[in-house]
Amino acid sequence: MWQLYQFPLCPFSRKVRLLLSEKGIGYELWRENPWEERDEFLARNPAGRTPVIENPERGITLVDSRAICEYFEETVDKAPMINGTAANRAEIRRLVALFDENFFGDVTGPLLHERMKKRIILRQPPDSRVLRESMKLADAHLDYIDYLIDHRPWLAGATMSLADLAAAAQLSVADYLGGIDWSGHEQARSWYSVFKSRPSFRPLLSERMDVIHPPSHYADVNA
Amino acid sequence: MWQLYQFPLCPFSRKVRLLLSEKGIGYELWRENPWEERDEFLARNPAGRTPVIENPERGITLVDSRAICEYFEETVDKAPMINGTAANRAEIRRLVALFDENFFGDVTGPLLHERMKKRIILRQPPDSRVLRESMKLADAHLDYIDYLIDHRPWLAGATMSLADLAAAAQLSVADYLGGIDWSGHEQARSWYSVFKSRPSFRPLLSERMDVIHPPSHYADVNA
Repeated sequence: MWQLYQFPLCPFSRKVRLLLSEKGIGYELWRENPWEERDEFLARNPAGRTPVIENPERGITLVDSRAICEYFEETVDKAPMINGTAANRAEIRRLVALFDENFFGDVTGPLLHERMKKRIILRQPPDSRVLRESMKLADAHLDYIDYLIDHRPWLAGATMSLADLAAAAQLSVADYLGGIDWSGHEQARSWYSVFKSRPSFRPLLSERMDVIHPPSHYADVNA
Repeated sequence: MWQLYQFPLCPFSRKVRLLLSEKGIGYELWRENPWEERDEFLARNPAGRTPVIENPERGITLVDSRAICEYFEETVDKAPMINGTAANRAEIRRLVALFDENFFGDVTGPLLHERMKKRIILRQPPDSRVLRESMKLADAHLDYIDYLIDHRPWLAGATMSLADLAAAAQLSVADYLGGIDWSGHEQARSWYSVFKSRPSFRPLLSERMDVIHPPSHYADVNA
């Protein structure tokens, strides 16, 4: 059985969980708070980041969310998520990078710092300037999702792909932390609401972080 | 002909250039300073980052260094750089992420900010605390390269891979900016010196950034 080391608000772990569920791969959740820097975890991943996925019976440890997704894409045929021509696949990977790096750097990362780390680790109040800036940048990213959905059924093209999973994973964490204002973004909202009702997404939306609670619309599939 | 939008000290562009040269793919260099945020460049890549590679005759634009490398790996058989079993390929991609994200975040990114952006854009002196911290972190990364090379001929295993190109690309920029102290890292140094004498690497080492000059050992294959 695969064992996924993750914590509930890690957007990269969420992307892997969505991929595993869509592909029908069973796994156990193992809670890991990377900020605790446990020796056993650093031995698995010297980079100190979640997610890490392990299969002890088969002696396999996989590290880095994109490497993990590529591994399961290569080894499990069901529900292809990096599909099509080489150019299509490049477009999927471009968007995965956009959400993993730019959206995370602009929005999810600052929100996790201000609303999670400061709350449960540093015991400091959030910086309202940083929160305002991340909401402004989130709005620009939502504009870009609106634009993509105006031109394509799914973010990278005609079918659901890893780009959709990467975007939904980041958005779901930002939304949990109250950093997303969906008003004026009907295309992004309708694309995301389809996601919210998928069986792969429901378990994520039902999980809660200790102390930190999401806004009321967070897990509502009709919101 | 492929056109690569890049600037000389962009480590992600360097990784792509190494891959293209190893695979024998011809390309033109187009200088792009992403901090200028040119409209034509943002139209090619809304994320605003180098590298971007374009083939106008074939109507293809590829964005994000990892997506670009995967594209050429899939379309050009020569010199496979993400090779082997699915587990081998996952190990290559783990190390690419380690250098692209952790090494860049710890070392190359801060050095580019302190020694390039502050010099040519912000007109400020570098922060010596930040430089000291990046050198300390570089030392820990070199320890890890030493450890890998103690166990394997190349970073990810028995053959040269994209992991080596990603690491050499980051290290070459950090070394250009005077951020690498090779003393006490014989394994890393000998691995890197093999690289420095490869035909794919020579053009990179001969390029210079205006105003900013590398230390004397930088392009010396015997140093």
